[in-house]
Amino acid sequence: MRLRGARSTTPAEVLRVEGDLGEARSDALASEEPLEIRLVWGPEEARERTTVAVTMRTPGADAELAVGFLFAEGVIRGREDVAGLRAGDGGEATPATMNLVEVELAPGLAPNLAPLERHFFASSACGVCGKVGIEGLALRQTWGLPRDFEVDPAVLTSLPDRLRAAQGLFEVTGGLHAAALFEASGRLLAVREDVGRHNALDKLIGASLLAGELPWSERIVLVSGRSSYEILQKSLAAGVPIVCSVSAPSSLAVELARRFGVTLVGFLRGERFNVYHGAERLRLASAVEAIGSARGEAR
Amino acid sequence: MRLRGARSTTPAEVLRVEGDLGEARSDALASEEPLEIRLVWGPEEARERTTVAVTMRTPGADAELAVGFLFAEGVIRGREDVAGLRAGDGGEATPATMNLVEVELAPGLAPNLAPLERHFFASSACGVCGKVGIEGLALRQTWGLPRDFEVDPAVLTSLPDRLRAAQGLFEVTGGLHAAALFEASGRLLAVREDVGRHNALDKLIGASLLAGELPWSERIVLVSGRSSYEILQKSLAAGVPIVCSVSAPSSLAVELARRFGVTLVGFLRGERFNVYHGAERLRLASAVEAIGSARGEAR
Repeated sequence: MRLRGARSTTPAEVLRVEGDLGEARSDALASEEPLEIRLVWGPEEARERTTVAVTMRTPGADAELAVGFLFAEGVIRGREDVAGLRAGDGGEATPATMNLVEVELAPGLAPNLAPLERHFFASSACGVCGKVGIEGLALRQTWGLPRDFEVDPAVLTSLPDRLRAAQGLFEVTGGLHAAALFEASGRLLAVREDVGRHNALDKLIGASLLAGELPWSERIVLVSGRSSYEILQKSLAAGVPIVCSVSAPSSLAVELARRFGVTLVGFLRGERFNVYHGAERLRLASAVEAIGSARGEAR
Repeated sequence: MRLRGARSTTPAEVLRVEGDLGEARSDALASEEPLEIRLVWGPEEARERTTVAVTMRTPGADAELAVGFLFAEGVIRGREDVAGLRAGDGGEATPATMNLVEVELAPGLAPNLAPLERHFFASSACGVCGKVGIEGLALRQTWGLPRDFEVDPAVLTSLPDRLRAAQGLFEVTGGLHAAALFEASGRLLAVREDVGRHNALDKLIGASLLAGELPWSERIVLVSGRSSYEILQKSLAAGVPIVCSVSAPSSLAVELARRFGVTLVGFLRGERFNVYHGAERLRLASAVEAIGSARGEAR
């Protein structure tokens, strides 16, 4: 489940300094390399190809990253849109192909690149304002989140340790983000790592998409770092009802959680955490429900 | 120097959970809103406008963010390319303009958007591989880094505390990245905060660009979080010889540091740090220089 490829870390000599003394040491860096994601479509005799994204990522799980990204961005609608995958991180990688994934669309499909425009050119329709994208997400939303999915708060506080126990590269490099998928019991199902937070979540989503395991109706997602607009956007695409992070959410992440009914947990550290929306999915003591004015429909 | 605008934080009710008990609390979130960056050019009677980027950012210092971004990406070459700036975060902001910055190009200039293509469509020329962009950066490099700029290692270990002392929003929200500019003495010159690491550095660069204070030949930059390709790319654009972060660098960050002679420091915490390249800018005890095989030209 972890990145174990030779290319996911890069050896380096480093000078460890304390006071004015330095000591040379061997160290391992988290690898960062560009990945080109290319769509391929059209009949055999007239194949078309177009590059849809170049993302800086940690090599490993490249095909998962590509399909997870395309799915979360709305360019593909599911596994059925993908007829073939060619990723350069396989056995026969050459320098020319090792940073390239080609995603072949199912026969008859042409690429829909409009959703990607958000990344660079805002369309006048999105009316760049505090609400940008939110209505667009609503239109793309294919899965409602279950209201009756409940977890024990003690399960949530156990997740960071479970993630750390499984996270191989971080221990080595100290430089990777992680996204992890859990059952309601707290059992870890999958973890993906990357120099980019968004990439780690794209890889996790891509793996589930390829395995036919979306939506994540009864699952919990934990991301290292902060919850941002993009983390929530991708989580919504995967249909997960509970999103946790070890750090703070942004205002827009909370806004999306409220709009779409996501249980959003932050500062998940030690025995405590904050709930920014959707506390009804947590089995809290009933005495507390009265206190919990934030419960369910904060503000 | 800090973000103090009313919109840089967003109040929220949060449920603080410990065990199975929850308690409602008032909290402050780091604001995240989209900013549209628009270029304006051409003669008065035939003005042209185009949106070049939409970035999720924390409101505040929007004009600095816009020009810093455009400069670091190579779309503008300096202050002289900017004839005017209109940012919606000023006094008379309306809902329609508060997330918009218009950058007016100097008379006779037309926008050069080619550098931005890296963000979404790789050109065949860049040959997406481990070397992507590096040669492109070399071509754009306008400032050589000084070889004789030296700092005391004790200055570096003092920087995180100086940053924390100045960082207003982080204390409140726990959710912001920061980029800070220091003199060789350790004196803090400026700090900018944002939900995005890259945005914080863009704001810092933009502020110096508008004040006519680039390049940062005798300056030190400190960023929260990790050093990535983009952090190094932006630092090179600003011409800063020493780049520090409190966490790990990526492999590509180290590669850029070696290629362009940047002193790259990571894991700057407490009394210790790692030097990944360019130790010759640190006043280390001479006995150590012999040990330091990584010194200057590691690997």
